Amino acid sequence: MNNERLIKQLDLIMELDRLKSVLRRTRVKSADKRLENTAEHSWHVALMAIILEEHANQPIDITKVVKMLLLHDIVEIDAGDTFVYDAIASEDQELKELEAADRLFSMLPEDQGIKLKEIWLEFEKAESDDAKFAKALDRIIPILMNYNNQGQSWVEHGIKRQQVIDINGRIEHGSNILWEKALQVIDESVAKGWLKP
Amino acid sequence: MNNERLIKQLDLIMELDRLKSVLRRTRVKSADKRLENTAEHSWHVALMAIILEEHANQPIDITKVVKMLLLHDIVEIDAGDTFVYDAIASEDQELKELEAADRLFSMLPEDQGIKLKEIWLEFEKAESDDAKFAKALDRIIPILMNYNNQGQSWVEHGIKRQQVIDINGRIEHGSNILWEKALQVIDESVAKGWLKP
Repeated sequence: MNNERLIKQLDLIMELDRLKSVLRRTRVKSADKRLENTAEHSWHVALMAIILEEHANQPIDITKVVKMLLLHDIVEIDAGDTFVYDAIASEDQELKELEAADRLFSMLPEDQGIKLKEIWLEFEKAESDDAKFAKALDRIIPILMNYNNQGQSWVEHGIKRQQVIDINGRIEHGSNILWEKALQVIDESVAKGWLKP
Repeated sequence: MNNERLIKQLDLIMELDRLKSVLRRTRVKSADKRLENTAEHSWHVALMAIILEEHANQPIDITKVVKMLLLHDIVEIDAGDTFVYDAIASEDQELKELEAADRLFSMLPEDQGIKLKEIWLEFEKAESDDAKFAKALDRIIPILMNYNNQGQSWVEHGIKRQQVIDINGRIEHGSNILWEKALQVIDESVAKGWLKP
């Protein structure tokens, strides 16, 4: 067997295994509340896209949205996960992630690497309808998980209601109905004492 | 907010979190060789479909294949994971998985639950070109992971070359080139002593 394309593709696939060891700040309710890793998060949010497609503000290309969500965080293999409420860490994160994208996508056959990196960049820019919806899902899932887990990462990090609103308001750009739901969950979480007023 | 469809969909999405606590027999090389869970496996294999699409024997509907792979193991939330080389456990696994599919997909709005269950069943039957390719990916990934991990689950469970060939020969139905690659990896693993001859 000497298929250069396949060899490159399989090398990247094995490299992607490393995303399973990148930890987020949310905890998995079902697994002794251990920290969630980025690989399982990416599965969860890609499946959300399939289930919630009808709630996008604009008609979307579901294939593109799912590709975005499966790929969106692979750069964390090099750049690590940044807590969404950590403004300082977020500053140089963008550069680190771009470098990671260059490295990872260039492992693929050139034509394929270019195409998939374009999809990743489209998500990052958050300008297209597909990217806005994908971003909305990526933003709402930690809110829902925190709500279903007694406010876990908000409580652990002393997060305030206004921080959650500021960071996640962009959910509305992708889905009005999901933002309405997020606001409801946020206000209930304040009432329960899981978020500071 | 009183959107019955959304409430049902979000209930399933939160229930799906439980897949992150279903453990497989393969280990994650990058994370201290802990056992892999089914959620992160599902992410890995769905992304493989996107990267390896060109190697399918027949033209496939990539959206359908990715949906299949994101959904294919959610039944393990109720039914657990069965080691592919455990012939006895596999016998009543099918019934348990069907019951799990009934429970999980019926949490969704009826029209949506029916459609997604059809996709899940199409994968299980492994008759369509899409399902054959999806199955091929699901079969080859543990082989590749074992190969990249000193034969880990084969060594732990004393697996023989012929078992791997018998169980995974169906990879060829979805992709000749991937089966050729699998055979190469299997024979190298025998030579290295990771698989019994």
